[in-house]
Amino acid sequence: MIQAMSCVFEDFPAGARLISSTHRVTADAIMEFAREFDPQIFHLDPKSAQQTLFGGLTASGWHTAAVSMRLFVDAMDVAGGIIGMGVDELKWPNAVRPGADLRVEIEILEARRSKSRPGYGIIRVRNVTKNQRDEVVQSFMASAMLPMRSSVP
Amino acid sequence: MIQAMSCVFEDFPAGARLISSTHRVTADAIMEFAREFDPQIFHLDPKSAQQTLFGGLTASGWHTAAVSMRLFVDAMDVAGGIIGMGVDELKWPNAVRPGADLRVEIEILEARRSKSRPGYGIIRVRNVTKNQRDEVVQSFMASAMLPMRSSVP
Repeated sequence: MIQAMSCVFEDFPAGARLISSTHRVTADAIMEFAREFDPQIFHLDPKSAQQTLFGGLTASGWHTAAVSMRLFVDAMDVAGGIIGMGVDELKWPNAVRPGADLRVEIEILEARRSKSRPGYGIIRVRNVTKNQRDEVVQSFMASAMLPMRSSVP
Repeated sequence: MIQAMSCVFEDFPAGARLISSTHRVTADAIMEFAREFDPQIFHLDPKSAQQTLFGGLTASGWHTAAVSMRLFVDAMDVAGGIIGMGVDELKWPNAVRPGADLRVEIEILEARRSKSRPGYGIIRVRNVTKNQRDEVVQSFMASAMLPMRSSVP
């Protein structure tokens, strides 16, 4: 069986842009994530959430981050793996509501070889998650390490 | 039935420190989170993970973030809810391995009233997640908004 080609460091030069596929965030998914990881009333129950600042059910920011990671991983398609090194300026400027269709817009800001890990490169990336109305629901900058072509079997 | 008192903005002056309870991260939980949100080999399968830079199964950084949020929410005990505004300097300096017992050390760096939202205060907080060997597995700074006593029924 032939394995589909997957991407490596060299496929992501500075200036490259990608757009992920879309993922719908349901009310059930919002409440399920919240019960496990962020049990606050605006994430747990549509009725109680109406009485809060949000005026209705919203996804945990960490749920949005997790969904965005899935979209990012699928879009990048790096079989060797992408190792997150750090994240800055993580913001959630608009609430994620039930039924939101999220996508991630990815921009490679910098790309350089790792000095300490031969065969690996480091990218600096800006990830912006938008909903179906093009409202930004999350943004951040991150550094991540991924294998160069020479280190992939 | 008498509801236990819960905390408000005024309970978290600058300089306050809290330590959360402990949560064990199992191999099953690592793989379950990864299948949904971060499907990369070092998070998905103990055997394949041995061939990676990590040399074994590790939790997704976003899984560590989600577990840390749960520990933070439980430790803060703010019934009115804590609304995350932004996160900086999010880092994962050591891998989270199966069986790790995580706790979060919370330090309130600043506390001020919101200018735009009467009845709410804003805290600047440093959250450091450590394992059972006191190794830092995650750290970040965040700003969050929470209700003042006057706005709680």
